[in-house]
Amino acid sequence: MTINRQWVLKQRPDGMIGRQNFDYVETPVPTIDDGEILVKNLCLSFDPTQRNWMVDRPGYLPPVAIGEVMRAGSVAQIIDSKHADFKVGELIQTTGCWQDYAVVAPGRGPMGVNKLPPGVSPEMMLSILGITGMTAYFGLLEHGQPKAGETVLVSGAAGATGSVVGQIAKIKGCRVVGIAGGDKKCAWLRDTAGFDAVIDYKTENVAEQIGVHCPDKWDVFFDNVGGATLEAALNHLNLYSRVVLCGAIANYNATEPVPGPVNLMNLVTNRGRMQGFIILDYLPRAMEAVEALMGWVASGEITYEVDMQESFDNIPDTLQRLYTGKNFGKQLLKLADPE
Amino acid sequence: MTINRQWVLKQRPDGMIGRQNFDYVETPVPTIDDGEILVKNLCLSFDPTQRNWMVDRPGYLPPVAIGEVMRAGSVAQIIDSKHADFKVGELIQTTGCWQDYAVVAPGRGPMGVNKLPPGVSPEMMLSILGITGMTAYFGLLEHGQPKAGETVLVSGAAGATGSVVGQIAKIKGCRVVGIAGGDKKCAWLRDTAGFDAVIDYKTENVAEQIGVHCPDKWDVFFDNVGGATLEAALNHLNLYSRVVLCGAIANYNATEPVPGPVNLMNLVTNRGRMQGFIILDYLPRAMEAVEALMGWVASGEITYEVDMQESFDNIPDTLQRLYTGKNFGKQLLKLADPE
Repeated sequence: MTINRQWVLKQRPDGMIGRQNFDYVETPVPTIDDGEILVKNLCLSFDPTQRNWMVDRPGYLPPVAIGEVMRAGSVAQIIDSKHADFKVGELIQTTGCWQDYAVVAPGRGPMGVNKLPPGVSPEMMLSILGITGMTAYFGLLEHGQPKAGETVLVSGAAGATGSVVGQIAKIKGCRVVGIAGGDKKCAWLRDTAGFDAVIDYKTENVAEQIGVHCPDKWDVFFDNVGGATLEAALNHLNLYSRVVLCGAIANYNATEPVPGPVNLMNLVTNRGRMQGFIILDYLPRAMEAVEALMGWVASGEITYEVDMQESFDNIPDTLQRLYTGKNFGKQLLKLADPE
Repeated sequence: MTINRQWVLKQRPDGMIGRQNFDYVETPVPTIDDGEILVKNLCLSFDPTQRNWMVDRPGYLPPVAIGEVMRAGSVAQIIDSKHADFKVGELIQTTGCWQDYAVVAPGRGPMGVNKLPPGVSPEMMLSILGITGMTAYFGLLEHGQPKAGETVLVSGAAGATGSVVGQIAKIKGCRVVGIAGGDKKCAWLRDTAGFDAVIDYKTENVAEQIGVHCPDKWDVFFDNVGGATLEAALNHLNLYSRVVLCGAIANYNATEPVPGPVNLMNLVTNRGRMQGFIILDYLPRAMEAVEALMGWVASGEITYEVDMQESFDNIPDTLQRLYTGKNFGKQLLKLADPE
């Protein structure tokens, strides 16, 4: 253990991100000061918002600098500690970034450090109990405010957030319609995740099919996709409906600014609300979501898929899978087993 | 009194509306049944949303049919009554439409019938105490939720709604920045209505000037304009800010769909909310707004302008004034004095 492999940001993205945006480098394994811990990344999390961190514009987090290790959530094992509350050997969830070893200072920074609860695996911690699961929980319940009998439409429905949104909406007594791409994802949503209807954007006319599958229109639209999907949805909103703006993955790799929907006035006519949110604001309430989600997983009311890639060399390509729709379930990459 | 002059909808709009969209007709003065009153219109109200009623698409009110009298609010005098609560000679505010005489059935229909409070003139009833004043009151306070010390940005600021929005925001202790067109309107907003800063969209770079005049960004954007103005504003929103979507007058006369803002993702990054609303929902609470607004007018805290046109023949051209920005203050047209 002397070398720390890293992928650092080489150039900011222009169009679809890929290996060309990153440099592979090797640096010495860092040492720690008082209050810090040294961790070894076991499993990395890939999230659509990570591309936004690569762009040099004001955001909810500072952009990753050129030459800086690419930012990413991870589950890691503590291999050295100068912090009384964190022991060597413990597993934590943190922002370990694209590298083997990271120095973490618990209690500082916006992303936090959390020990894995008993019985929780790294992949569970980074998927259903991680940022994506919590995004589904707080986004839907706080901002979507679904009521039993209402219709909830979800884009990016087979994604790690969308699939959980739909299943929580079912638990709350809603009719749930998902938009996803490809037979495999659509069949899983219908047959395993229990969605009432699914629209395959690769083979179906989304604008038309929203009308078919939401005969009473929708009351909540949880949007991970943006672009044409948002515009299509806004033609079928019910009175007093809520759009939960979670992301716009359709636009992230565009080389030109993507125009917004032509039909925003439908929000006026229907007294609709469109609410953006960032999960960071809810991290102080994380345990509320974790407890609820663990309960629903235990009872079988929520199921989830993990798409586990491997190999340090595959890290940049694995991020790209999110934007090409190749991932099936939460995108993770395993670097090592715990010792 | 035997002829009822009317302007009826002749063809639906394609681009800028004007006389070509209406036919002048003369019909007999109607008679009334039990529960109805016959009224003579004294003063007509012109509102940007009226163009939306001319288009054949689902809206918050059914579209005006081809051959139907154009819908518009008015103050009218009762000249015949078969309703115990309404006496000949009384002045009411109702939806009298573009005609001399209307049959009104109090208690039916969404627009309502309201007697003028003592001391309230027809122009006061149709401007500061009318739909536009109430739109400002409920839109800003219910959806904008301005707090003292916050910055409130208003587009269409010299309009009948925008100018009241800004003045209520001042009363609530906010810094107020308006966007309007032309020296006369901008000077009035600054010198008479008490706005802290005004941007002239006819001569200034709006996107840039919002940044100049909102150094701490804005917390509430009350948008009457849409289009490029909305996009420019969304580059300067503060964390947890609120967009009150009132209208999009910039788009109403467009012949092609107008794309929405390219920067809707700023709502996500800044946890912003965009809320559409329709004043009809607040009519049951109208007296709350009327009392507050009358108080502020009496104390001199709110001032308002009325742009009073004349002559039945001028009705279609008067509606057009709203979309060309010719009106200064609330657009009205006087048909007759009370008897």
